[in-house]
Amino acid sequence: MIKLYYGPGSCSLAPHIVLEELGIAYDSVLVSLKDGEHKKADFLKVNPKARVPALNVDGKVMTECVAILTYLGGGFADRGLWPKDTWRQCEAISIMSWLSNTVHISFAGIFRPERYADDAAVHPQLKATALSNIDRHFADIEKMLTGKTFAMGGQYTVVDPFLLVFYRWGNRIGLPMKERYPVWSKHAQRVVSRPTVKRVFEAEGITLEGVA
Amino acid sequence: MIKLYYGPGSCSLAPHIVLEELGIAYDSVLVSLKDGEHKKADFLKVNPKARVPALNVDGKVMTECVAILTYLGGGFADRGLWPKDTWRQCEAISIMSWLSNTVHISFAGIFRPERYADDAAVHPQLKATALSNIDRHFADIEKMLTGKTFAMGGQYTVVDPFLLVFYRWGNRIGLPMKERYPVWSKHAQRVVSRPTVKRVFEAEGITLEGVA
Repeated sequence: MIKLYYGPGSCSLAPHIVLEELGIAYDSVLVSLKDGEHKKADFLKVNPKARVPALNVDGKVMTECVAILTYLGGGFADRGLWPKDTWRQCEAISIMSWLSNTVHISFAGIFRPERYADDAAVHPQLKATALSNIDRHFADIEKMLTGKTFAMGGQYTVVDPFLLVFYRWGNRIGLPMKERYPVWSKHAQRVVSRPTVKRVFEAEGITLEGVA
Repeated sequence: MIKLYYGPGSCSLAPHIVLEELGIAYDSVLVSLKDGEHKKADFLKVNPKARVPALNVDGKVMTECVAILTYLGGGFADRGLWPKDTWRQCEAISIMSWLSNTVHISFAGIFRPERYADDAAVHPQLKATALSNIDRHFADIEKMLTGKTFAMGGQYTVVDPFLLVFYRWGNRIGLPMKERYPVWSKHAQRVVSRPTVKRVFEAEGITLEGVA
């Protein structure tokens, strides 16, 4: 019994897509971030850290995108969404870890600056630096994807839906994604055109550009 | 042929300890962060992102603590520093991912506030919020370790040296670690008393409290 707690368009989008790709039975539970449901008693019982995604498997809860994606990739290896070789698996974890501790963190500077400074007066400063960091990180992603079909090369893996999360966030904050990151834009189109991804976008009520 | 690029006392301390624990042949290469060597051409050839640790294995480079620790744990599974079961492996990755994207990031707010705001005038604000976040994260670690010998239970794994990095950083910024986090303090003593860890502290010229 697998249950994913997700916030529409949050980083939980990646495991949501992967669950759909795996073709296994799962439930998805909407946690409305804009209504603060992640901070309410019901959800804190699932994840005391008040963050999505959380994955409940037979009553046990896994948190952290990188761990959940590794579990879904490696735990269902026959579905082909995870590299076979240990070194390559850790390369996938390396990319995901950087997306989590660097790229996601930069967006938090824009979406949730209160995490880094209580005083709202300094938030514009945080946002400006975050924006310039995102620009640099996105250039690194563009370079990383150049000459490849997917993040890990020819094989579509759990890393690709994770990249899509940040591509979409780039759109959300108004970056000219198609003009500035043409290679990544092709990658995003390749991912978003998958029927599985279309179903999840519809379920979450989102589009690549924003909300449906 | 394995080579670790490390900065004394940085998060590279964790893979440095694990390499020593594994009892395999490896070289360690000092990258002096205080002299800015991580930003110079020689090191940028190793890791263009200008961060330690970087692990060179037979000419291929792995970056990101979480990925390197997973590689050293899982790639040398017979040494017993990695859980055997997939779910437990991903639980270890979950803890490490949180240490990397939340606890490490909070310390970056103190050690490297320029990453989050260019304007030095707002750095004191960032540091104050970071300190209050660290207090909350450390309370979570204290709770996580309660009733356990090691982070994953009875088994010493790659997660434990990673925790030690942040315990030591708590000392560095002057937190009353022993008084405030007694359970974690016992854990840290358990880890630091290992001959392997002593050798690495000596090699890096550090102590649990600061520099040797």
